[in-house]
Amino acid sequence: MRVEIITIGNEVISGHTADTNAALLSHAVFSQGAEITRVVSVGDEVETIVEALHEAIARADLILVTGGLGPTPDDRTAEAAARALGKKLTLHKEYLEILKERFRKWHLTFTPSDEKVAYIPEGAVPLPNPVGMCGFRLDEGSKNIFFFPGVPREVKELVQEALIPFLRAKIRGGKEIVRSALLKVFGPTESGIKEILHGIQDDIELAYLPSFPEIHLRVVARGVEAKEVEARLKRCEDEIAERLGVYLFGTGDEVMEGVAGRLLREKKSTIAVAESCTGGLIAHRITEVSGSSAYFLQGVVAYSNQAKEQLLGVSQSTLERFGPVSKEIAHHMAQGVREGSGATLGVATTGIAGPKGGTSITPVGRVFIALAAEDMVEVKKYDFFGDRHQVKLMASEVALDRVRRYLIGQSAYSKP
Amino acid sequence: MRVEIITIGNEVISGHTADTNAALLSHAVFSQGAEITRVVSVGDEVETIVEALHEAIARADLILVTGGLGPTPDDRTAEAAARALGKKLTLHKEYLEILKERFRKWHLTFTPSDEKVAYIPEGAVPLPNPVGMCGFRLDEGSKNIFFFPGVPREVKELVQEALIPFLRAKIRGGKEIVRSALLKVFGPTESGIKEILHGIQDDIELAYLPSFPEIHLRVVARGVEAKEVEARLKRCEDEIAERLGVYLFGTGDEVMEGVAGRLLREKKSTIAVAESCTGGLIAHRITEVSGSSAYFLQGVVAYSNQAKEQLLGVSQSTLERFGPVSKEIAHHMAQGVREGSGATLGVATTGIAGPKGGTSITPVGRVFIALAAEDMVEVKKYDFFGDRHQVKLMASEVALDRVRRYLIGQSAYSKP
Repeated sequence: MRVEIITIGNEVISGHTADTNAALLSHAVFSQGAEITRVVSVGDEVETIVEALHEAIARADLILVTGGLGPTPDDRTAEAAARALGKKLTLHKEYLEILKERFRKWHLTFTPSDEKVAYIPEGAVPLPNPVGMCGFRLDEGSKNIFFFPGVPREVKELVQEALIPFLRAKIRGGKEIVRSALLKVFGPTESGIKEILHGIQDDIELAYLPSFPEIHLRVVARGVEAKEVEARLKRCEDEIAERLGVYLFGTGDEVMEGVAGRLLREKKSTIAVAESCTGGLIAHRITEVSGSSAYFLQGVVAYSNQAKEQLLGVSQSTLERFGPVSKEIAHHMAQGVREGSGATLGVATTGIAGPKGGTSITPVGRVFIALAAEDMVEVKKYDFFGDRHQVKLMASEVALDRVRRYLIGQSAYSKP
Repeated sequence: MRVEIITIGNEVISGHTADTNAALLSHAVFSQGAEITRVVSVGDEVETIVEALHEAIARADLILVTGGLGPTPDDRTAEAAARALGKKLTLHKEYLEILKERFRKWHLTFTPSDEKVAYIPEGAVPLPNPVGMCGFRLDEGSKNIFFFPGVPREVKELVQEALIPFLRAKIRGGKEIVRSALLKVFGPTESGIKEILHGIQDDIELAYLPSFPEIHLRVVARGVEAKEVEARLKRCEDEIAERLGVYLFGTGDEVMEGVAGRLLREKKSTIAVAESCTGGLIAHRITEVSGSSAYFLQGVVAYSNQAKEQLLGVSQSTLERFGPVSKEIAHHMAQGVREGSGATLGVATTGIAGPKGGTSITPVGRVFIALAAEDMVEVKKYDFFGDRHQVKLMASEVALDRVRRYLIGQSAYSKP
């Protein structure tokens, strides 16, 4: 099955919005064992949308379109869809009623211009959406076209409600059984992973998906018999896990901060963070996880020396003696935040994120990361590469990974 | 001039990497007054790349390709380019020398497989890159195709070194003069802005580019005489600025945290942040700006009540009386972090980021944001919409905007 995505909107082609809808749809399609072959982004003009639809229909079996379904004059996807397929735009009365009902429920005024949304191509089936704008599906011969709204939250809902069930039926209905898994790795480079996985079984497909600073591996198994395919996938996952050891930190939807959080919760541990060069990013990542208040006690962003002294108890003489970017200061910061907060673990970063501030002794990218627990403080020196944002991101990732490794009983230095 | 982008890589179509290269290239093209009409993303297979190149050549005048130029067997863009244009892949000796020189400089071993990179289509012109992988340019009749590497940092460099000068010459060489500006707005919705700008001069193009939680406006003026076009653009920018007033926070590359930072620097002011529901995001954003250590003193992420008491001096009786998500606690947090740090300004957030933790009295999305200065503390209540990440992002944006407005003498409540 060839699947293509078309995302519509000037904000996407002008580079103003990351195309999260394309990512959302790709994930959903991959999760059902199918593959995206092409993502096309075009602006809001009807002609361009018609052209993109024509081309996609000629190539693909399933087409997923996002954007341009709203009530404003810029939203012209339904019109383009009708034109591309030679259909009329007609008022879908049931859909109109659903819309009006929503507006009532959300205490919004239904204006005549909102009625425009219910004009969809003849023969299209509305896709009701409990959290916002609906979409619709159009079939053209054996080809299926889904039209989703442009707001990612609304797309997400419709993917779950409409696309996943459709794909499941479509793929199960067909002969091929496809199962896939996503494995997330942090530590080695792509070529390092390839070396570790050299000669692994060849009855599966393995794709490398770099996602800085991580590398994700997609493993796909295909066949005609579900049990056999699942067993083969499982065998392969196990072998990869065995070979990669501690480098493999998660699977599927898991993220590094989520894995560290889960471990903290399981071990009934708590954490506090003292950040200098990461500037709040570690705390931000930890608190992106729902429920993190159960284990995250506090964060301190000690940019100034005064803050290091006052909030973390790092003495001025220590600061003067070793300088703020040093092994000793990272040590004191991690210990200080741990003791001050009463947390099980304390993590600290101090370094030069750049692009300015580097010296011949302490170059840009030099970061000390410390982890303090009841019985030890472990400090390590790193030299990261890249711009300010990349250095911050890499340092935050290493810090979270150090927490994870500590909690599973693997030191920062251990190799699988 | 029709400009299209092709981004190559399985990691892009699988939704694993945000397509930052497409955004980078779009910005560069827009900055020179041209427009992107289409962005196509395909995987690593030669056939698909050839097909995408053929289609783009049929439609566009300038094609910008990223990805697939590296030394690994997955990197097959040069091969696809040669095939699409009916050329041979040949070893470019000068390019090979440049490569070898780079490897020497960076203390890397040049292996036989690295030589592959220097095989480019006959007639292609290498684009030297001081920070990494080179690209090349191919001309086909009046059409030009740029091939860039896949690493955004390397693309960025080549855009400055090769693409921008090319576009400048191409556009100046032509008859049409194009000037554009990007205006960044925070506060009103898109339809709110449209109402404010209703009836604005019609001799310019105005595009709305939502970039949550901001709305960006691209203003484009075209004509044949540079001075006239520039004057027309300036007049329009001035009128938009006049009408939008305090809602217009920046232009071009400026970001909210950068504008707030610039104002802090100009006013010789300093800032300290006390975060609960934003969990470190405000500090992270402030410290994304190079040089922020000049005005950012400290951040405190006080997730637990104990942290609010210990780090910010919010008394337990106050916490018990008003509850942690309240006007009073925001007030005390902002005042506490300001006084504790000695900063000119203190900012604080407390709220329910969700998706859990809401009650009928304090629903998910409810956030109190306080700004403390020498002579006042101003607290405001907000009800934000969306998931955990969106609530955090919106709250951090409002907090930074409040700082900005205070520094330009506009209160949080003032309208333009």
